Amino acid sequence: MRTNSFVLACMAIALMLSCGQPDPENKPSAASPETANAAAETDPDFDPEARLAELGIALAVPSAPVANYVNAVRSGNLLFLAGKGPMQADGTYLTGKVGADLTQEQGYEAARLTAISQLSVLKAELGDLRKVKRIVKVLGMVNATPDFTNQPEVINGFSDMMVAVFGERGKHARAAVGMGSLPRNIAVEVELVVEVIPDN
Amino acid sequence: MRTNSFVLACMAIALMLSCGQPDPENKPSAASPETANAAAETDPDFDPEARLAELGIALAVPSAPVANYVNAVRSGNLLFLAGKGPMQADGTYLTGKVGADLTQEQGYEAARLTAISQLSVLKAELGDLRKVKRIVKVLGMVNATPDFTNQPEVINGFSDMMVAVFGERGKHARAAVGMGSLPRNIAVEVELVVEVIPDN
Amino acid sequence: MRTNSFVLACMAIALMLSCGQPDPENKPSAASPETANAAAETDPDFDPEARLAELGIALAVPSAPVANYVNAVRSGNLLFLAGKGPMQADGTYLTGKVGADLTQEQGYEAARLTAISQLSVLKAELGDLRKVKRIVKVLGMVNATPDFTNQPEVINGFSDMMVAVFGERGKHARAAVGMGSLPRNIAVEVELVVEVIPDN
Repeated sequence: MRTNSFVLACMAIALMLSCGQPDPENKPSAASPETANAAAETDPDFDPEARLAELGIALAVPSAPVANYVNAVRSGNLLFLAGKGPMQADGTYLTGKVGADLTQEQGYEAARLTAISQLSVLKAELGDLRKVKRIVKVLGMVNATPDFTNQPEVINGFSDMMVAVFGERGKHARAAVGMGSLPRNIAVEVELVVEVIPDN
Repeated sequence: MRTNSFVLACMAIALMLSCGQPDPENKPSAASPETANAAAETDPDFDPEARLAELGIALAVPSAPVANYVNAVRSGNLLFLAGKGPMQADGTYLTGKVGADLTQEQGYEAARLTAISQLSVLKAELGDLRKVKRIVKVLGMVNATPDFTNQPEVINGFSDMMVAVFGERGKHARAAVGMGSLPRNIAVEVELVVEVIPDN
Repeated sequence: MRTNSFVLACMAIALMLSCGQPDPENKPSAASPETANAAAETDPDFDPEARLAELGIALAVPSAPVANYVNAVRSGNLLFLAGKGPMQADGTYLTGKVGADLTQEQGYEAARLTAISQLSVLKAELGDLRKVKRIVKVLGMVNATPDFTNQPEVINGFSDMMVAVFGERGKHARAAVGMGSLPRNIAVEVELVVEVIPDN
């Protein structure tokens, strides 16, 4: 319980911090890959793991796939990540349907936990999160009732964390949608595509 | 209302035109990237914006993302677009579940409007639609009842528009599926991957 | 009916064979692209079509898309495949909702049939399955009831087949999720991204 409270407190702090970083413009040019990419290889201030430490977030060993698949496959400079869910500090998953068992706010928390799950995968795959050049594409899937309509507000829990950790490089193209059902009744599942800085 | 009627008339004309362009062969070789790509850089008749004008379709400024994400991210020659929905001429979205609130035909119209939303994003990102080398992959998501089974006929509204505007280069790999729910109860959401002609 | 029984027997044999190949380690390093890619171009024992013959599986001419789209689009070394479903030996599809009309085991069989559908597409596109460098990313979609929670066990029918045919190169990043509805009420639909060995 002590651990859980600590993690929850960290989440709350992280939430406040990330909420302090709204996207002020939201104009299409924000997607400019040139700007983000140029920064990616030269910015000495880009230190996502230091940012995680500031946020009080500890990454875990990612859960092992339970079948004939893997957590990530790289092709060229693109890293395709398998879908992951909201693993909690005690190793169990946050479950339930948003709109019935869970509120929108609990869904946001599930999406944040899912972001931490995927950051753990990225750390395990890349060794160093500074190798992330851009979070490219996110498919945010909410286990929702048929009449739930605030999927974006839920998946913001994932997106806000990516931007809190990676800054401009964390801004991604996204779809946030409602699924009929998810494995083990997890509240949220997210898969994503990440561009990595090539090894030299 | 006058504007709406005009747009609806344009839609009807576009519908007739695109219906006049069935895929005559549908054989696997139609997917040959070499053929399409060779054409992409040399065909002086490839003018998708002129085609849009012929169809009477005006693009809009794309809607701004409402959170920490962007409309599109480019990695190499691939442009990953965020999910978009059926924005109508008055700026509101076409909503409702296909199979209950909406007919299949209304779903088709929603998918067409979604195509126009994504063409607006492409125009804003690329400046010139002639930079589209190939519509590569489309995930067409229908807000449908559990017993609805004509998702392909709905998403044809998107696919037909892509082929009407881009010709062979508009033919994509596609999945057309039924979602449990979608943001703001929009009828259709589509995300896609586009190959662009590199800047020299 | 004779053909159907033979095919079902082959499926059963294939099922037994693939079940005899669990992933023994499941550690993140299994996703290492370097290892798989190095093997891809030098391993004389990589012969997926011989493996299919051993499994008693015959590929078919892939079903033609029924609209303005194609079975696959290649961009660079990535091949994006359209969603396909569980076509049976008689050309009909295995339909029904898993959790209501179909058991988990029948869902697994549907996912296996879907794998064969996609292998048929790959054969038609590439000519030779040895051109597969890596099965990169799989989105496994189960037509499920809202309370069904074993999507991974269903989509294992697809994943097990990929690994049975392609070995290490068949191991992919995956999401296995529950859809509200699918076209023609098919039980499973899978789309995937494949890295191919470039032509020289």
